[in-house]
Amino acid sequence: MVWGIENSRELYGLKGVLNSQLFDINEKGQLVIRIKNKEIPVAELLEKHDLPGANIRVLPWIGLMIDYIAGLFIEYIKNYGYRGSFKPVYPLKVNHNDMVLTSIKRYGEKYGWGWEAGTLPEIQKALSYRTRGLFVVDGVKDLKGLEKVVMNKEAFGEAIIDIESIKEAKLLDKIREKLGEKIRVGLRIRPMFRGESIWSSSSGLTSKFGLPLSSIYKILDEQPWIRDRIVMLHFHYGSQIVTKKALEKMFTEMINTYAVLKSELLPGLKYIDTGGGLAFDYESSCSGSAYSPDYTFKEYVETMINIFKEKSKEYGIEEPDIVFESGRAIVAPHRISVAKVVDIRPYISDLTTDVELVDKIRSAKTIKELSDIARESENIINRLLSYTDNIDLKRREILEGLIETLYREITRKAKDLYLENKEALSQLEENIRMGRPLYKFLVSPSKRFVLSFSIFSILPDYVILNQYFQPVPCTKLDKKPDVLAAISDITCDSMGEISEYISSLPKGFTEIFTEKDNRLLGIPGKRVILRGIPLHLPSGDEEYYVAFLHTGAYQDPLSMSHNMINNYPEIIIDEDDKGDIIISYKDSSRDDYPL
Amino acid sequence: MVWGIENSRELYGLKGVLNSQLFDINEKGQLVIRIKNKEIPVAELLEKHDLPGANIRVLPWIGLMIDYIAGLFIEYIKNYGYRGSFKPVYPLKVNHNDMVLTSIKRYGEKYGWGWEAGTLPEIQKALSYRTRGLFVVDGVKDLKGLEKVVMNKEAFGEAIIDIESIKEAKLLDKIREKLGEKIRVGLRIRPMFRGESIWSSSSGLTSKFGLPLSSIYKILDEQPWIRDRIVMLHFHYGSQIVTKKALEKMFTEMINTYAVLKSELLPGLKYIDTGGGLAFDYESSCSGSAYSPDYTFKEYVETMINIFKEKSKEYGIEEPDIVFESGRAIVAPHRISVAKVVDIRPYISDLTTDVELVDKIRSAKTIKELSDIARESENIINRLLSYTDNIDLKRREILEGLIETLYREITRKAKDLYLENKEALSQLEENIRMGRPLYKFLVSPSKRFVLSFSIFSILPDYVILNQYFQPVPCTKLDKKPDVLAAISDITCDSMGEISEYISSLPKGFTEIFTEKDNRLLGIPGKRVILRGIPLHLPSGDEEYYVAFLHTGAYQDPLSMSHNMINNYPEIIIDEDDKGDIIISYKDSSRDDYPL
Repeated sequence: MVWGIENSRELYGLKGVLNSQLFDINEKGQLVIRIKNKEIPVAELLEKHDLPGANIRVLPWIGLMIDYIAGLFIEYIKNYGYRGSFKPVYPLKVNHNDMVLTSIKRYGEKYGWGWEAGTLPEIQKALSYRTRGLFVVDGVKDLKGLEKVVMNKEAFGEAIIDIESIKEAKLLDKIREKLGEKIRVGLRIRPMFRGESIWSSSSGLTSKFGLPLSSIYKILDEQPWIRDRIVMLHFHYGSQIVTKKALEKMFTEMINTYAVLKSELLPGLKYIDTGGGLAFDYESSCSGSAYSPDYTFKEYVETMINIFKEKSKEYGIEEPDIVFESGRAIVAPHRISVAKVVDIRPYISDLTTDVELVDKIRSAKTIKELSDIARESENIINRLLSYTDNIDLKRREILEGLIETLYREITRKAKDLYLENKEALSQLEENIRMGRPLYKFLVSPSKRFVLSFSIFSILPDYVILNQYFQPVPCTKLDKKPDVLAAISDITCDSMGEISEYISSLPKGFTEIFTEKDNRLLGIPGKRVILRGIPLHLPSGDEEYYVAFLHTGAYQDPLSMSHNMINNYPEIIIDEDDKGDIIISYKDSSRDDYPL
Repeated sequence: MVWGIENSRELYGLKGVLNSQLFDINEKGQLVIRIKNKEIPVAELLEKHDLPGANIRVLPWIGLMIDYIAGLFIEYIKNYGYRGSFKPVYPLKVNHNDMVLTSIKRYGEKYGWGWEAGTLPEIQKALSYRTRGLFVVDGVKDLKGLEKVVMNKEAFGEAIIDIESIKEAKLLDKIREKLGEKIRVGLRIRPMFRGESIWSSSSGLTSKFGLPLSSIYKILDEQPWIRDRIVMLHFHYGSQIVTKKALEKMFTEMINTYAVLKSELLPGLKYIDTGGGLAFDYESSCSGSAYSPDYTFKEYVETMINIFKEKSKEYGIEEPDIVFESGRAIVAPHRISVAKVVDIRPYISDLTTDVELVDKIRSAKTIKELSDIARESENIINRLLSYTDNIDLKRREILEGLIETLYREITRKAKDLYLENKEALSQLEENIRMGRPLYKFLVSPSKRFVLSFSIFSILPDYVILNQYFQPVPCTKLDKKPDVLAAISDITCDSMGEISEYISSLPKGFTEIFTEKDNRLLGIPGKRVILRGIPLHLPSGDEEYYVAFLHTGAYQDPLSMSHNMINNYPEIIIDEDDKGDIIISYKDSSRDDYPL
């Protein structure tokens, strides 16, 4: 059995619909960026400037995502005979980096892409990027923010100011004369269905956002003039709605509420702002878990338009225009974060202790037998670890060596049993499914790789939400991974560590153990959470970089400066007017990082 | 029964040993900062410049904490006849703001305070603040960082470079000739005892930090010259160790390990770096929970020195010098974050629905009876909420009103029963202890207060770790709180919401219900978690600010720029050479916030 780059494609999630368009592995085993029929090896980009790491921004990929998603809407609206139109806006909160905004304007202009701004600095920023599109203003407003909008009517095609409280309706009344023809009003309404995502507290009757009916009644009562101005209902169910079933409930509640309010209270309604929620598949596995929706972009569009059309007919109303404001899917792929390995340390120890159990492990005949020994070993380790008082060197030495030895022997035996008899697979799978101690041994890391980056700065949502970002080695992808490793960053914080890897090996995959530490790479046909990242041991002075994919949404604005580590070098891949690729570097911060 | 400012002191945690020195409530019911026999009303500081909010920095409080903690060490070392000395360093990662560092240098100089730096930018920053104290260099090192240290020997009294891997020992070998007399070596060792804090993964055999024995042996083997250079063992068990029991285990392991290594392997050892761990009482209640240690600063010092002395005697070694590197306790109090209420919204709704259950609630005779009705009400609400399809306005109206009505009636009845008969208290307490549905009704918010700030920017550890920061209204403290309220920030993120309040009312406290929404303020003698913050409803155009105490540690460096909201106005309270108080403003960012 030999490992090939096809195995790496499968292990590192590069076979998905989107990832296979963006990335590949070349015959040297390097991770490459695919753009305009070119293949750019990621490691070479960094080696060229001897960088400790970098955020690589592939700006044309913003165009690719825009074309893809707008294309789906336009095609489906046309084919399905939907009579509402598609009005996309980009919410600045997802990433307000100027390169990102410039790219959205450049690639989105032909679809009339507009902006969504939720705070005063966002309003100002959005107004500096003129567009013919829609400008949705939401968030907590005050008079100076509203006046900025009315004073800058030339900067947008049409603006809709969302009202979210009785006070905001009063504020709007103060500038009512200045609204003119271009500025209308939206109601952000509190959804009742809770979106079932990790952000589901964005919806439901106690949500931070949106108006309850009682407030809508009061607003219409106190400010009757506003009724004729209201053209939009705005819903938001929280980011990353990952199941198709939840999408159906959410679109159904939207159109029901819209239809009822339009018929009974607000005849001027024309738009539904569908808010965020379109989930991005960070795992590239369509698993329906928090970071991997069980539906495709296409299914999202189809589900929305089918439900809107069907229900509009039922209620006998015109089909609403669709304000689409998902930003995550548009910008997540454009940034790849890459960091260099600057130290490799033992995860526990390098010592060995002679222990009788080793003979027992070595003579195990089946995974079942080994599983029982693993349970026994775990008990022994836990018992030993619970005494930390009065420790002498010898005792500590024995303990370190004992744990290390048991991990080493048990994992080696498991691999041997599997190689001897592939039937062992179902036994392994059972151990994992049942969370038995053997599972813990098999998926644990044996090394700690120190990467020259700050997780707080580069992947803040990992710290905040344990968000998954796919790690991929930048080289050696023609070789089987040697070990499972915990990844440490350079901050002095125990939270600056990543040791979760989501493995979704396809059926028929046979090379399920690492080369050197005999840990498990996954179970074919199953989604398995490993406690270390499959990585290679670089030889000698070889440079080894690890990439994290799809870090372009939220990770720029949420970046933290823990340990004074913040600005990371940037490599910008763009295209010129002729469509030729240009690569530029912003790497003045490189000396802040160990090399 | 009347509410007095003494009740507010108790409710808002201002009676604790530390808080009662720093804060008070004046006769106008204003929260005041106590400094140099002066009382500065917090709200007036903000009103003067019409600010949406601010971080108030009271720099002399850094001096107060330094004097207090150094005083404890010096006194106890003297009284107890401990023969090691006290060597404090401040870890830059806790807060590297220049005002903070300047204050530490100013107030810490007389105790020989030094620095601890864990990254290259921190090394550079520390070297720019010259000191006669110790300079501990840890974290992930490379040659350029080490060279910076050896080139700047005039900037510190003595430096200790911590080795954390075999590779780092090799790096050190390259500059060994340049180390001279002032630069020694420390070993950061992996503690076996896990610190039992939320950061306990900082310790234990699989910790991100520190050397296993196997690596120590290898280092001494490969770099024998290093043995004579090693003077310090460095331990870190994670931030916020909250129990005295854990402290005892941790100090015992430190001195045991030190003694054994000194006797058997490293005779040059002189210092123990005790790392972080000294917990700060954010709750001001000594509760032993994650943000409130069950010991005092004094007990921390006593426990350490007693154990170090006793064990040194046992092992027959000299008592080690103590490198003290807790930063949290030194800087947490100096920053108070204050934000203005810019909108007040219903938490659920303002509607009312007629429902038979109301009669039943009104005629309940005991808390027990009411508790059963609350369970019934909860079931009804959950059943109704589970249908979100095909909703018409009427149905939504009924639902909103029904929930609101049940909350209103049940809480009112509970208050009435308590006022009629104080025996009801034990019944209430039982409902809370058992987590019965009545508890949920009684501690739920009825309002949503929108504050002009970003929780992501001002209280990032709330977002990351749900860390508790004591909220206190800045005015109206002579009045009973009107309501329990959820606090929303101005970001467009559902995580930008605080609705947890930890109440620790003293025994004998009788005013346990809010004035207007009849929610519970706590149970005398118990620690109760409320689901809303006790706040007042400001009347008319009255300005109302809420302060969050002790935000001076970590919240500056971890600040995030969600929704482009970052720089907050600052009010700096300092003293001049004569000891007079000076107040200055840095508020150019004020226009970014709604007013």
